[in-house]
Parts: sequence; structure tokens; C-alpha cells
Amino acid sequence: MRMVDLIRRKRDGGELSDPEIEFIVRGYTAGEVPDYQISAWLMAVLLKGMSRPETAALTQAMLHSGEVLDWSSLPRKKVDKHSTGGVGDKTSLVLTPIVAAGGLLVPMISGRGLGHTGGTLDKLESIPGFNVNLSATEMRRVMEACGACMIGQTASICPADKKMYALRDVTGTVESPALICASIMSKKMAEGIDALVLDVKTGSGAFMKEEAAAAHLAELMVETGERMGKRVVALLTDMDQPLGRAVGNALEVIECMETLQGHGPDDLTELSLELSAWMFYLGDRSPSVEAGRNLAREMIDSGSAFRQMTALQGGNPEALSDFRMLPTAHNQLVVASPASGYVTQMDCEKVGLASLVLGGGRNTKEDAINPAVGLTVHRKIGDKVNKGEALCTLHYDDDRQLSESKSLVEAAYKLSATAPPARRPLVRRVIGRQ
Amino acid sequence: MRMVDLIRRKRDGGELSDPEIEFIVRGYTAGEVPDYQISAWLMAVLLKGMSRPETAALTQAMLHSGEVLDWSSLPRKKVDKHSTGGVGDKTSLVLTPIVAAGGLLVPMISGRGLGHTGGTLDKLESIPGFNVNLSATEMRRVMEACGACMIGQTASICPADKKMYALRDVTGTVESPALICASIMSKKMAEGIDALVLDVKTGSGAFMKEEAAAAHLAELMVETGERMGKRVVALLTDMDQPLGRAVGNALEVIECMETLQGHGPDDLTELSLELSAWMFYLGDRSPSVEAGRNLAREMIDSGSAFRQMTALQGGNPEALSDFRMLPTAHNQLVVASPASGYVTQMDCEKVGLASLVLGGGRNTKEDAINPAVGLTVHRKIGDKVNKGEALCTLHYDDDRQLSESKSLVEAAYKLSATAPPARRPLVRRVIGRQ
Repeated sequence: MRMVDLIRRKRDGGELSDPEIEFIVRGYTAGEVPDYQISAWLMAVLLKGMSRPETAALTQAMLHSGEVLDWSSLPRKKVDKHSTGGVGDKTSLVLTPIVAAGGLLVPMISGRGLGHTGGTLDKLESIPGFNVNLSATEMRRVMEACGACMIGQTASICPADKKMYALRDVTGTVESPALICASIMSKKMAEGIDALVLDVKTGSGAFMKEEAAAAHLAELMVETGERMGKRVVALLTDMDQPLGRAVGNALEVIECMETLQGHGPDDLTELSLELSAWMFYLGDRSPSVEAGRNLAREMIDSGSAFRQMTALQGGNPEALSDFRMLPTAHNQLVVASPASGYVTQMDCEKVGLASLVLGGGRNTKEDAINPAVGLTVHRKIGDKVNKGEALCTLHYDDDRQLSESKSLVEAAYKLSATAPPARRPLVRRVIGRQ
Repeated sequence: MRMVDLIRRKRDGGELSDPEIEFIVRGYTAGEVPDYQISAWLMAVLLKGMSRPETAALTQAMLHSGEVLDWSSLPRKKVDKHSTGGVGDKTSLVLTPIVAAGGLLVPMISGRGLGHTGGTLDKLESIPGFNVNLSATEMRRVMEACGACMIGQTASICPADKKMYALRDVTGTVESPALICASIMSKKMAEGIDALVLDVKTGSGAFMKEEAAAAHLAELMVETGERMGKRVVALLTDMDQPLGRAVGNALEVIECMETLQGHGPDDLTELSLELSAWMFYLGDRSPSVEAGRNLAREMIDSGSAFRQMTALQGGNPEALSDFRMLPTAHNQLVVASPASGYVTQMDCEKVGLASLVLGGGRNTKEDAINPAVGLTVHRKIGDKVNKGEALCTLHYDDDRQLSESKSLVEAAYKLSATAPPARRPLVRRVIGRQ
């Protein structure tokens, strides 16, 4: 088998067999197939696509490039949730303690924020002492004690994906549904879970802004997971505006703790419960999604489970009650509305970038972030605002990027004299066998 | 300027500016842009295409990645010919002495054979002592003495092309008209010539088997040359069967010498004269192509010019009269026709491969070749053959690949009981301002 022949076949729109895809992934991981051949192949894949069987074979090969976590000593079902990323998208911190308190195991491996979207690991690390870099043994200890553990990707998990993702990032080959699917699903399958709920975002703050593209990716991931023998559903959810009101790492932790005390923003609460409900249902903890919703509502007051996990992962649980112990920005600036009217639209990506430029996110994987900064969103779609009233509050330490952040917020809002039509539901569609 | 942004633009079907293309070529040559980004970009170029201005900018940037030969001290016009490659395609050895004897300078930089096609350098090197690796100074000395010089690409000529071609070869990105055009034209322009005649092959033995694809490449190269201020025409010529009767390096040298004595095969003689005629015309040595044809016919007896060049390049000119001094295969095998009939079609690529497997060509650039082996073609399209009569004679040293070579020859011929229609002309079209 010669790599150049496989590149040519894909370039010409052909299909690769399972052993051929395994040859590529195995050879790349072992350093036998060089970067320059993989990047040409990735571009051909991006432009010519991959069939469902090819996508499943790629996922399988990447999964088996490394370790698959083995929880057979823990008899409960293992479930996880994965989001394709958004602005203020913090449900992982809410639903993990809910689902663990409800009797399932959640071995969650998350990522960092990139571009306008935030990442779970960055949020967790804003809690003083919280360690996301646990070994498999340490993770097992935490899981045994509290039923959940939230860590970053280890070197032994999907090394092929780690290497390939870094290459995709610099070769313009990120935006392929098949490659995105294989990257996400291989990592999730490596967690050794029984079931997975996917939160596929669509709208102005999502990577997949068009609903059709998001639905396509969702179907691809559900089918790939099912081909691998797992129960998987995808919820296509709204990202036309930030989820909740907090954008920025420590600010989002605070909002999650408030939600776990029962007084979080409606949309964050609703989506966290809905995702928890599906996790309960797919993890055989409830006989229906509706029963899962009831169980999730009972478990909403699970701040204690989160505090326990935080302590087990080296974090200071006191900071989750006394928010003054979390990183706090030194300054605040209110961005006032330049006109009166109803908010009819938000460019949610701009809101994410407004936090990024203050230091709350990163442009490249190497950038350091400031956990304290971000913004509080006061007006969302459908809200009325008078000229001079607050749209957002910026939390900042360094004022060099302040005017850029302010301009991004101002440009993100679209006002109109008449009220917009009723909002579309937060969960637009559920994809997968239910 | 970031390479990843340029890759993404091309991937999405956009156009790159001249400075952007220069950035890519310059960065790649300097080692600042890595192979893996170039190969992703090359794949995007292959699948999304390049506009004419982009192709010209790429050619220009590759040309200026190295030295451009300067012949200003030699007052005559410099012309060259380039062929896209075929089987038995040996016109360079015939027309170079004709055109030099006719008063023009021919600073020819050629390549080696690859796959089923032969290469001028391999043919020249079958002449004992012939050195194709001359420095620019040595080349100048030969040019001054005899008006022509035939060498291989030096390290200082188009280093960007050399590096990029090696990468294209292993990343499935060879077959792009824009990239082929830039690779050929940058090297030809680096010769410091005033005019260029392109021999673009089409048919079963050519790289571009379809006439439409060959015509497209021809137009692209002509327009690119004209954008660079050169006189360029392309002749679209037949490669549905081998040119002449000899295929293999020393065998082809013999046929060229016979042609320069006026008794070569008709097709080789005709095409060599036609290409010479165009070179005379574009080099302002004759007022019309017709006048160029007459001049070429007068100069056909230019074996002495070729012998002079051979001696100046270290070769033994005696071998050009006494062919026993050329490498000679130890054995011959006649491939007999399995049936009677007229030859209606030849798979010319198979004929080239029949020589390759005997050692006359190379599968990879690293393969060594045997200059003595090859084949003599006894029957061509339109010829009648009786069962048991010779189709070809194989000249071989090692019989391990003999049966494969024989099978390839047998499979190359298509016979029919009725005579085929009259042959299409050797020169199918002339492309370019005439």
C-alpha cells in the first residue's frame, strides 16, 4: 500500500477501505507517513468528502491509536455530553454534578477554548487549584469517590487525533464534517462510555452557523456512534445569542454555581436539564426522556457534588460559595445602548470575540488567558432597551483592547422599533433514535 | 500574511494576488513555509484550479527563485523546444543540431524519463562520455563553440520548482494544468530564451491522453509565455503510437543519427522538421513557417553539428557513426503477431512500459536505467501483419521481465480484418499567435 495512491484515490473522489484508512492513521501516528502526505490527503478529504463507512473507519482508527478507558470495575453506566462549542456555553459544569448525583458515571474529557468560543478546561482552571491534568489512575480515584471527573486530553488518548488536529489547524483543513466527526467521536469513544448526548450548536455564535450544516454534522456523529455500538443522540440547539448572561471563565463558573442553586438564567437552566434528561434516558437511569427531566429537576441542587469533585481534583471548594476567592477583574465598563428599541438579532460570534480581546479567550493555542475577564450580557433577543441603558458590562484588567471590545459589543446588537417575533425554541431538533 | 489564510482562500475557490503567490514560493524556497502547508495548498490548487494571472504569477515566482541564464554576450536569438513527453519521442536530438546549424542558439535544459516516457538526458547519456551536468560557464563555452548545448537542470535553476516537483510527486498533486504549466515554463524561461516551441503530446502514449486536456494545457502555456514577453507556440501532436521505430535510449540515439543522415522514419523526420521550422520562424531566422521548413530541410544533414556538441560535452563522437560503440543489448526476441490483420490501434503507453520493464525506463526517480535495452517497432497503425510476423523486437539483457514485456507488446496492438481509415495528421493543431 502506498500513501500516494490513497491520496490520489481520494483526490479523484474515490472511497477508501477500512484497512486503507487504518494504514493512514497507523502510519501517521508511528511517524512513517509524513505530515506533507497527510495534509494533502486531508485537503482532498475536505474537498471531496468521506462516505459514512469511511468516517466510521477513520473514527475507529483514531480511537485505537491510543488507550480506551476501562471502567468495567465500576458497574454503573457511563455517559457523557459533548458540545460543538459556543459563547457562554457552560452546561458541562451544571449537568455533570446533576447526572453524577442522579446515579450515572460521567468520565468527561474536555477541551480548551479557541477563537470566539470558550472551553470547559479554561473555566474549571479559573477555580483556584483545580487540576484538569489527571492520570488515568487519578481519574479513576475521583470517579469512584464522586461519580464524575472532568479532565483534559491525556497523551495516551487518541494520539492520532492530537497530531492530526494540530496539522489541520495550520493547513486549512479544519472545516470538514467527516474530520470534525472523527476527531470528536474518537475522543468521546476513548472515554469508555456507553452513551453520548451531543449538543450541536447552530447560529451566529456557532462554528456551524447554518442549521443544515449543523444537522449534517449531527447526523454524521450519531450514525458514527451507532456504528460503534453506542447510544447517541444529538440536540440541535440555538447559538444565535450567548447561553446565559456570563461570558468569560470565572464569570461563567459563578453563573453555573447559581444555576446549581436553582436561580440561574432560564436558558442555561433549561438546556442543562434537557441535556441531563437525555443522559439519564440513554444511560438507562430513567425509562423516558420525560422521566429524565423530572430526575434532573430533582438533582438540580447538586452544588455539593460539584464541590466534592472540585476538592478531589485539587481545587478549593470554598471558592464555589465565596466568589471573591475566584479571579476577579479590576475594572468594569458598562456598554450603553446607542439607541432605543427591541433587540432583534445578535451577532453572537462578536460577543465571544469581545471577551477574547479582553484576554478571556485565545487566538492561537499558545496564547495565555486571563480567567477574570469577560462580560455580563444584560440584554438578549426580544428585550427592550432604551438609549443609554446597559447592553453589556465589560470586566477588564487591561484597557488596551477595551475600545475594540466595546465596539464588538455595539456591533453585535441589532435593534428595531418593533418587537421581534417569538423566539424559536432553544432545542431546535433532536437527531437520532429516541 | 499567513500561509494558512492563503490555503483557505484557495480551498474556497478564491484567487491569490501576485504578492501572495510570491510569498508562498519565496517562503517555501527559503524553508520558512513547511512542506505540509505547501502540499495542502497544492491539493487545493489541483482541485480548485488557478486563474491565468495566478498561473503566470506562479511561473514568474518560480523562475525568479533561481538564476536566469544571460546570453547577452551572444548576439543571436535563443530558441528552445519542449515536449510534454511520449514514447520514442526523440526530436530534441534531431532538431537541436538542425536549428543550431541554421544560425540560432539552443540552450536546452532537459529532464529524465519517468514512467512510460523517455527523457532526453537518458538518451544523451547512452553516448559514451556524454556529460549533461555542466556548469553555467561550461555551458556557455559549448554554446559559443557550436550554437547549442544540452544539459540537465542545475541547482541554481528554479530551485522552487525542483523542491515543489519532488513534493508533488509524493502527494498526488502532479496532474494540475496550472502546476504543470508553471513547472515547465519557469524552467524554460530560466534558459534566457527569446522564443519557445511547445510540443504538446496527446493520445494513448501521452500524459494528457485526451486532446481537449492537452489543448487546454497548451493554451495555458502559450498564454503564460506571452504574458512573460516571449514568442511561444504549441503544436498539438500525435502520441497514439511511438514516434519513429526505436524505443530505448541507445536505440533512439541510433535512429536520430540516421534521421540526421536523411534516412530516418517519416514521422520522426516530419515532426523534427516541423518543430525546427517553427523555431526558425519564432527566432526570426525565417520570414514564415514555410520558409523555416525549407531552411530545416537544408540543414537536415547536421550530424556534424551534433558530433561537435557531443565532443564538447565530453562524449565520444565516433560512437555516433560506429554504433557498435554504443551500449548494445545482448539478446533479442521477436514478438510475433498472434493473428493476421491490420493494426487499427496501439496502446502506446504499454509500448513505453514494455521498454521500462526491460530496464529502459524508471518507475521512481531513484531507479537506474540500462541504456542498451528497449524495442524496435516493426508494425504501426495502418500496417498489415500476418500471423507469426514480427510486431516488435525486444532488446534485452536480463530475461526476468521478458515475458512481462512481451505481454505488454501483445496487449498494445489491436488488429482488425479491415484497414483502418486514413491516419490523422501528425500535427493536429497549432496553438498560439502565428
